[in-house]
Amino acid sequence: MAKICIVDTTFARVDMARYAIDTLQTLMPSVQIVRRTVPGIKDVPVEIKKIMKEENCDAGMVLGWIGSSITDKISYAVYSLAIQLVQLELERHIIDVTVHEDEAENEEDLYRIAVDRAKKHAENLYLLLYRPDVLTARAGTGRRQGYPDAGPLRV
Amino acid sequence: MAKICIVDTTFARVDMARYAIDTLQTLMPSVQIVRRTVPGIKDVPVEIKKIMKEENCDAGMVLGWIGSSITDKISYAVYSLAIQLVQLELERHIIDVTVHEDEAENEEDLYRIAVDRAKKHAENLYLLLYRPDVLTARAGTGRRQGYPDAGPLRV
Amino acid sequence: MAKICIVDTTFARVDMARYAIDTLQTLMPSVQIVRRTVPGIKDVPVEIKKIMKEENCDAGMVLGWIGSSITDKISYAVYSLAIQLVQLELERHIIDVTVHEDEAENEEDLYRIAVDRAKKHAENLYLLLYRPDVLTARAGTGRRQGYPDAGPLRV
Amino acid sequence: MAKICIVDTTFARVDMARYAIDTLQTLMPSVQIVRRTVPGIKDVPVEIKKIMKEENCDAGMVLGWIGSSITDKISYAVYSLAIQLVQLELERHIIDVTVHEDEAENEEDLYRIAVDRAKKHAENLYLLLYRPDVLTARAGTGRRQGYPDAGPLRV
Amino acid sequence: MAKICIVDTTFARVDMARYAIDTLQTLMPSVQIVRRTVPGIKDVPVEIKKIMKEENCDAGMVLGWIGSSITDKISYAVYSLAIQLVQLELERHIIDVTVHEDEAENEEDLYRIAVDRAKKHAENLYLLLYRPDVLTARAGTGRRQGYPDAGPLRV
Repeated sequence: MAKICIVDTTFARVDMARYAIDTLQTLMPSVQIVRRTVPGIKDVPVEIKKIMKEENCDAGMVLGWIGSSITDKISYAVYSLAIQLVQLELERHIIDVTVHEDEAENEEDLYRIAVDRAKKHAENLYLLLYRPDVLTARAGTGRRQGYPDAGPLRV
Repeated sequence: MAKICIVDTTFARVDMARYAIDTLQTLMPSVQIVRRTVPGIKDVPVEIKKIMKEENCDAGMVLGWIGSSITDKISYAVYSLAIQLVQLELERHIIDVTVHEDEAENEEDLYRIAVDRAKKHAENLYLLLYRPDVLTARAGTGRRQGYPDAGPLRV
Repeated sequence: MAKICIVDTTFARVDMARYAIDTLQTLMPSVQIVRRTVPGIKDVPVEIKKIMKEENCDAGMVLGWIGSSITDKISYAVYSLAIQLVQLELERHIIDVTVHEDEAENEEDLYRIAVDRAKKHAENLYLLLYRPDVLTARAGTGRRQGYPDAGPLRV
Repeated sequence: MAKICIVDTTFARVDMARYAIDTLQTLMPSVQIVRRTVPGIKDVPVEIKKIMKEENCDAGMVLGWIGSSITDKISYAVYSLAIQLVQLELERHIIDVTVHEDEAENEEDLYRIAVDRAKKHAENLYLLLYRPDVLTARAGTGRRQGYPDAGPLRV
Repeated sequence: MAKICIVDTTFARVDMARYAIDTLQTLMPSVQIVRRTVPGIKDVPVEIKKIMKEENCDAGMVLGWIGSSITDKISYAVYSLAIQLVQLELERHIIDVTVHEDEAENEEDLYRIAVDRAKKHAENLYLLLYRPDVLTARAGTGRRQGYPDAGPLRV
């Protein structure tokens, strides 16, 4: 029975964790979820590291939300690297669901992206844990989260 | 009784730590505060790491001030990553209150941002330590510090 | 007999690993290949680290695909640094085959770049392991992967 | 009696270390100085780390000089992060005096910035070691090095 | 008798290592050289780390070549940081000779820069090992590699 740690933020404008958890529970009915919420992305890496260790989760999922200024992009870079460091130290996957406010021109589109990305990455986490063969079958096929699949190059 | 380490700078143009400490003491009357001031943000990471270890603080708070040049942005990126590294090594939260001079067009607005951000992040630190349930209730609701809350996406 | 770990993604739009594996098997008929596929580049570093350790591979190969937005470039920077960290910790080579969508104006060209780069870097991995003398003979000769060789400067 | 390690470069266009050492000796007449010079900023982090450890210095001071191209800015970012890493590992302050060639329009101004910054940061190092109370009294007061103080925001 | 590890690339368009080795052998006739060549800069950090440890070199020299696209600049930043990490872990100098293709408008100039930089940094490595007093005498004098010396600021 898999145990998944999830950290999201009060900064985000969509409760993405709800959609991710729904998907995880559908795909893995006996999954155990440990969820924490922190103010913003700068608080996520230490929180996910702490609960992954304390709760001994098999994998993690972090849900971040990024503004569109240059300062926000820098914060995203730092956040993203810190999540890599946690993964490398723990040697466990932490799926990163990040939504950038400059990805859409209106709130409807941004909402749709956020929900789709959270759901699809929850499925990816399931595949990483239980069905790596499915991922290999999809290698190089242009899968996307938040957008329609790009598909393989047409040549 | 929580013990909080705080590091701020002489470079900053607002004494943000004063507002943060007021808020912490209001929310946690028995809180112990350890405060140090260093010249600029480059001196903050090693100072907060040292006092967090020496004073055995439960959590930390750093208050930075960033100019608007490209060099300042680079220094911010480096500073921000160093604060992540300290958090990950100590496995304790260090709330990062950073004000960027390009956030406002005049000194009044910048002052208001700095004070609001310091106060709200002090409250966030309290919630992280004592009321994680309140943070989870606020997940995905677009909370902001320094600005009015953005709120959840309207869809 | 060399053992090579390979990680690629479902995000990529070309199954580059197939071409890399073909080349490795042609050059090293007894090579053992361990292949995993993950959703995107953010999932690659921890996966290659894990399998390099678990399977005790002599070297690794990672195949990434990068969009053309500024956010994609940031993700590439973070990914690239994480791969460096894994190499430095394991003290083993991990050849990095990355294709950027802004490298070509149409899908045919991008496909050709991806395939050529995967094949040539597979050959490079062989040379690193078995023929370092050939690499030294090529020092400073402007070799390229994905494009025609630039050649040495003409002076 | 404090012992201070100093590393500067042959790349710099002002002998800033001379001014820093003068200030340190004025403020701490019995200070011991260990000084090394390296070619450029890329050589500074390992040198300051080595001598801080070998000579057991209480604190360090590094004096860098940065060109104005994008490549120079990248090198500055990398240098600056490496200095953070050394400080965090040694848990000792290393004051960073960096002059960027794009800070001034002529050589006279750049010279004045370099000298003022070296002197004021030498004073800052003294305050960090012996008078932290003075630094705290200056918190949020907009102190600058190389330029006139900005002062606290006027509201 | 010094032992120097050198890593260069097949990507470079000038055999800079040849010039560096000539200079090292002229200045240190009994120097021992260990040279390896790898495909590109991403392969350099792990190679120099490995051979520095395996061959117990006193110092290292890496020779990189960087394209002019934004992706190349990112790769340079990552490479440069990785070289810092190796130096800090080994606590030994690794002189970094990097040529950027956007440094010159034609191949003749770029060749001249590459050769001059390789030679002068080889001399710098000698000075770091045997004549630190000469480097200190040159502190703040605006030395350059690849270009004429800038000299000290004229004030």
